[in-house]
Amino acid sequence: MVQNSADRASLQSVSSASLPGYQGSKDEHLKRLRRIEGQIRGLARMVESDTYCIDVLTQVSAASRALDSFALGLLDVHLHHCVAQAIADGGEDAEAKIAEASAAVARLVKS
Amino acid sequence: MVQNSADRASLQSVSSASLPGYQGSKDEHLKRLRRIEGQIRGLARMVESDTYCIDVLTQVSAASRALDSFALGLLDVHLHHCVAQAIADGGEDAEAKIAEASAAVARLVKS
Amino acid sequence: MVQNSADRASLQSVSSASLPGYQGSKDEHLKRLRRIEGQIRGLARMVESDTYCIDVLTQVSAASRALDSFALGLLDVHLHHCVAQAIADGGEDAEAKIAEASAAVARLVKS
Amino acid sequence: MVQNSADRASLQSVSSASLPGYQGSKDEHLKRLRRIEGQIRGLARMVESDTYCIDVLTQVSAASRALDSFALGLLDVHLHHCVAQAIADGGEDAEAKIAEASAAVARLVKS
Repeated sequence: MVQNSADRASLQSVSSASLPGYQGSKDEHLKRLRRIEGQIRGLARMVESDTYCIDVLTQVSAASRALDSFALGLLDVHLHHCVAQAIADGGEDAEAKIAEASAAVARLVKS
Repeated sequence: MVQNSADRASLQSVSSASLPGYQGSKDEHLKRLRRIEGQIRGLARMVESDTYCIDVLTQVSAASRALDSFALGLLDVHLHHCVAQAIADGGEDAEAKIAEASAAVARLVKS
Repeated sequence: MVQNSADRASLQSVSSASLPGYQGSKDEHLKRLRRIEGQIRGLARMVESDTYCIDVLTQVSAASRALDSFALGLLDVHLHHCVAQAIADGGEDAEAKIAEASAAVARLVKS
Repeated sequence: MVQNSADRASLQSVSSASLPGYQGSKDEHLKRLRRIEGQIRGLARMVESDTYCIDVLTQVSAASRALDSFALGLLDVHLHHCVAQAIADGGEDAEAKIAEASAAVARLVKS
């Protein structure tokens, strides 16, 4: 289903050694993580100051959604870059990359 | 939602072959769905016979996990077949197929 | 934290042998389950007629959300009836009922 | 969100003792949050050093599970203390506390 290419070996040696798919959007991803880190620190401050349980839980749900969004954003660039490149290059690596992305999705859905 | 239309055949002939990626594993997917349908019917029987709430909830969690597994199996064949084929074919359709798969993953993670 | 009551044994023998918390809303719960069963059968029809993977996945997400709502509705009546009754009755059973509800919530969150 | 207000003290004295249910296990909860904060900072370091997307996603799943466990632990003490106390005290506040806990569970299940 996925075409082999004469260039495969050389393309791979470039792509595997090279930068991750989120390279072009690195700042945005780091900004999201810093915001989530701030949310977690905010949770600690809430617990330290004896905030009512339910109010803490509401903020946990917000942090949890932010973490899911970060993961989905990262997966999206991974599919568009790493996986798409591996498929365009063809060969065994393409199948492996798809299986790996599938397994990552399964971990996200179950976590 | 997926009614046939005059445009559909021509659109399909452009985007990819007309059969879905799960064509080769259709029986397995149908078998899983029949099992989940049985689990839902089992839940109704439990409620009808006044089964203790917690025991019903335990079976809901099992049905929910089975539904997630069905979805992940379908997504896996979709990535290996439809998405991989669109990328191998190249062009705009590849980007669209990846964006569409990404959105489906987001719905699964959030549901 | 939970007060003991002289009536505990007799109250328990009534409540434990008796009907589940959803007794008063049984029809509504059964109606929801029948709707979910219909959604699962709809999924099987989609697969049988070779519906596009992504359209099937969209319907899986809808069925999954419906199953979650059913579970949350059942948990709500369980907390309002069974758990509240056990706590009002006091004694060891109250702690056990709370631990059991907590474990059911953990299964729902992780499934 | 949880600012102090003139009304708060009096409201609290009605609804329950002023300290949250997790008072007795505060250190454990803070320890968990510090660990999660470390996991989020670890994610930022991974992104900064161009770690492969899938490896980042694996760590996101771990952080997400840790956050769920923190929430479930907090909910558990909330049910055992705040909710149980409100029910033992009886009155309208009991129903309100149960409804509130139920809504918090729904947010956790859906997030």
